[in-house]
Amino acid sequence: MTNPTAAILIIGNEILSGRTQDVNINFIAKRLAALGIVLSEVRVVPDIPHRIIDAVNTLRAGYDQVFTTGGIGPTHDDITSECIAEAFGVPWEIHPETFAAMEKHIGKENFNAARQRMATLPRGAEPIKNSASLAPGFSIGNVHVMAGVPRIMQAMMLALEEVLPRGTPIAMRAVYGIGVLEGAIAEGLTAIQNRYPALDLGSYPFMQERTKSGVAIVAKGTDLPAIEQAIAEATTLIAGLGITPAQGEPP
Amino acid sequence: MTNPTAAILIIGNEILSGRTQDVNINFIAKRLAALGIVLSEVRVVPDIPHRIIDAVNTLRAGYDQVFTTGGIGPTHDDITSECIAEAFGVPWEIHPETFAAMEKHIGKENFNAARQRMATLPRGAEPIKNSASLAPGFSIGNVHVMAGVPRIMQAMMLALEEVLPRGTPIAMRAVYGIGVLEGAIAEGLTAIQNRYPALDLGSYPFMQERTKSGVAIVAKGTDLPAIEQAIAEATTLIAGLGITPAQGEPP
Repeated sequence: MTNPTAAILIIGNEILSGRTQDVNINFIAKRLAALGIVLSEVRVVPDIPHRIIDAVNTLRAGYDQVFTTGGIGPTHDDITSECIAEAFGVPWEIHPETFAAMEKHIGKENFNAARQRMATLPRGAEPIKNSASLAPGFSIGNVHVMAGVPRIMQAMMLALEEVLPRGTPIAMRAVYGIGVLEGAIAEGLTAIQNRYPALDLGSYPFMQERTKSGVAIVAKGTDLPAIEQAIAEATTLIAGLGITPAQGEPP
Repeated sequence: MTNPTAAILIIGNEILSGRTQDVNINFIAKRLAALGIVLSEVRVVPDIPHRIIDAVNTLRAGYDQVFTTGGIGPTHDDITSECIAEAFGVPWEIHPETFAAMEKHIGKENFNAARQRMATLPRGAEPIKNSASLAPGFSIGNVHVMAGVPRIMQAMMLALEEVLPRGTPIAMRAVYGIGVLEGAIAEGLTAIQNRYPALDLGSYPFMQERTKSGVAIVAKGTDLPAIEQAIAEATTLIAGLGITPAQGEPP
């Protein structure tokens, strides 16, 4: 697989404490699949400098692209930007263009020290302009630093997509059967996976209510005709149990 | 802080592909906070043996408890159990008690090779009995291996809580103000954080709609009186802006 790889780093005590249900991983994961970038790892770390710095340096060495969310606001717990500077071994300094734009928008009298921190970036960082917030995210090397607030993060991700290197889009097709038990199809699924080694064939039980339990079979990869053939075979497998298969994901 | 620490390892291509919105992290995070266990890291890795083995060995060395979800069913993509055996350097073998119980429940004729894999555990593993599934999760050393399907995972987590070592419960209180801007309270918040260094004071902007934007201030820790005092000070800080503070999290 020659598709680029990626990791996500969520910087957020609020995720680890259970206060906040993360929705950023799923948003970024879907966008990356469409871009043909293979998301290979996610980490969530607390707002502690050495934890952030270590994670950034490990992930940027291991993957083609790294996306971080969280910690770029003006308050005491927003420490991502200076940690990224330290991870890259560069100064953390006023970004003149961003400083001027924020000062103009906020007004000189309200552009206090806390807000000026948002115009302070690692040297060499390129701001990620976006429609949701004047304070920018930024890219440095292969690391893309975005906000934690989902609406702002999403605007930054969409802006970023314009410049990200792309691979062959990763396609996904599914079939499911209500009442299917994984143990009844496991052997047949193994045979299908073996016939399509380049695909990623997954088996996912679902349980909404007792009457809506079953299994979804999902094929994923860059070869759409193979995906469709594998799903056709999985459809036959489900039908062989005397259960009516339904195309797509369970509702 | 003498509270025990923990990490979560999500084993799941379906999270990395964007197919599935994870809800297991948040459930486990909340339960751990109530038990006084500090969740310090989360990783999501794909269904690839060396990735699972490396992550398990790193996390079990770094934290008091490790919770994994996903990959313990009967299909070809369920490889967590044998990877845990390899991570611990022990044989992966039939667990006689589990084998007998599953065979009895499923019936000898339906207890095929795929289903027998679910009765195969790392040597020394202790099954996690639960109300949702006959196939058990298991604990080995400080690693607790649970299902990926949320309803089954939750039953396993609740069963596990009976035996987990506990710490002082981690309490959390919040206050928010609609219309508050982080840049206006950052300095005051820093002062509060400095007065309560043992607490974790977080500032979280929210944006449901334009009219419902604001900031929530969250204090977290094991010292409830200090938490309540810090939140009282944050309440005063918000009121000082001419904005009416509301106790708790924003709706």
